[in-house]
Amino acid sequence: MSIALIIPDRKLDDLQQRLQQALPDTRIEIWPELHDPAEVEFAVVWKQPHGCLNGLINLKAIQCFGAGVDSILADPTLPNLPVSRIVDPALTEAMIGYLDGVVNYYRLQLDVFSRQQQQSVWRPKSPRKLNHIAVLGLGELGGAVANHFYGSGYQVSGWARSGKSLKNIQCFAGEGQLAQAVAAADVVICLLPLTPTTENLLGENFFSTLKPAAIFINVARGAIVDEQALLAALERGALAAACLDVFRQEPLSSASPLWQHPAVLITPHVSAVTNVSTVVSQIADNYRRAQQGSALLNPVDVVRGY
Amino acid sequence: MSIALIIPDRKLDDLQQRLQQALPDTRIEIWPELHDPAEVEFAVVWKQPHGCLNGLINLKAIQCFGAGVDSILADPTLPNLPVSRIVDPALTEAMIGYLDGVVNYYRLQLDVFSRQQQQSVWRPKSPRKLNHIAVLGLGELGGAVANHFYGSGYQVSGWARSGKSLKNIQCFAGEGQLAQAVAAADVVICLLPLTPTTENLLGENFFSTLKPAAIFINVARGAIVDEQALLAALERGALAAACLDVFRQEPLSSASPLWQHPAVLITPHVSAVTNVSTVVSQIADNYRRAQQGSALLNPVDVVRGY
Repeated sequence: MSIALIIPDRKLDDLQQRLQQALPDTRIEIWPELHDPAEVEFAVVWKQPHGCLNGLINLKAIQCFGAGVDSILADPTLPNLPVSRIVDPALTEAMIGYLDGVVNYYRLQLDVFSRQQQQSVWRPKSPRKLNHIAVLGLGELGGAVANHFYGSGYQVSGWARSGKSLKNIQCFAGEGQLAQAVAAADVVICLLPLTPTTENLLGENFFSTLKPAAIFINVARGAIVDEQALLAALERGALAAACLDVFRQEPLSSASPLWQHPAVLITPHVSAVTNVSTVVSQIADNYRRAQQGSALLNPVDVVRGY
Repeated sequence: MSIALIIPDRKLDDLQQRLQQALPDTRIEIWPELHDPAEVEFAVVWKQPHGCLNGLINLKAIQCFGAGVDSILADPTLPNLPVSRIVDPALTEAMIGYLDGVVNYYRLQLDVFSRQQQQSVWRPKSPRKLNHIAVLGLGELGGAVANHFYGSGYQVSGWARSGKSLKNIQCFAGEGQLAQAVAAADVVICLLPLTPTTENLLGENFFSTLKPAAIFINVARGAIVDEQALLAALERGALAAACLDVFRQEPLSSASPLWQHPAVLITPHVSAVTNVSTVVSQIADNYRRAQQGSALLNPVDVVRGY
């Protein structure tokens, strides 16, 4: 009986070693070097090559090595098995720290002062008055982020595909209410899951409903945003600035016009990276649950996509 | 009986109007257009031309229009009268907001990512581990800033000319302990008053005692720092970065090498600007105290310089 780690392009020695300590009687293998594919009962997966799970004939469950499962569900040959994902308090804390820092960067006009500095220009400005934040996506991360900013004194509205109810947050639901959710927002934060429904959801229509000079932050997935519409909104001043941590293709191509746009801040997908030390126990727990045939922690609705 | 506002190069209509509302029976005048200099009993002063107070023969008290009194005390002909300054909770809150934003800017590596962006380079990095903050100057602002960062989970050390005792903050005193105060600091924040003792205090010796790759933030006065020593420390990597909000000469000359230094973030003296709406009542209160001959609120020790 073994666990396969199917996470291409990443050093896995540390994860393997820690999982081995947590589960001393289980073989922990790094795909594609498997002792016997028929022995694999549990797979920890991230951006797997499509089809690679089909040879694991005794697989019982799929554990996503992160919060967003879109790259796993994109595999058209995905076996019909329970899928779970990581819900890591450290991930939530990192995301809140990132967003808090970025919102304050804009509040203090550090984007404007950086541009002025490049031209040796001294022009004092008062802080931006950012009162209202809209959070798109009210799952584990989005809900926590909305609560955090409410607690810091902001008015917060939220939007999700299905109706959610969060104390102190004005919640909107469904595509018909997206414009209402962001109409009063000084800052819009995208924390939506990437699904066929949300791909390219934030396009020309969306950006034209924002308050003039709003600030847009994407920490979810690049493909949710229509990049041409985003650039056009920056050009016509519908957006004052955009902070992008995620892109349709990562790493972002050096030819992308986003790099040199003066109103765009680019960070290389660092807002919240899965932390090995905190997720090992969650993986081990789900492995034991799969062995016992009980329900997984943090299950994913494969049809809904998150 | 009148109050003179002696604050060159600033629009004072709003301040004059609000003070007039607070003190309807007192004439509020804007220097140099005084009805009768002998009627002026109280002066609100900021960067006054030296000697301009000497014609006010019935002046009873000098109210500095800000927290730092160095520009007022620099006048060699300053009359021997009580001097007070603004201690404004909104000023303290603004300073904490600025410093919190700047520390998080560095924690999130936004300085590094901005430089990478200029070169279209995608290179993820974990947040900087900033654990220890040293605060130089433990007055109203410095003490509040030290407490704020302690409350946010940082280890905090503090330094002041004279011995201070602050709960949870490791306090050091006197020039002999300056090196100890900053030895373990990942971030050093300067909030010292500018006095003959602190002018050029932070020079080559000081920068050579810092932890390698420390971050230096100056929100006090430019003349406390020896700029050549600062640039040399950045060159040899003793400092990883400097955020400067204050300069020996303001506006900073467009010829200054600081503007284009890749490891320097320049903000144009915006960290905490006196807010008219919150200081009017403090000025009116001190005017009444001066009229009654009672002690001023927030008095300044003219000999000590703060």
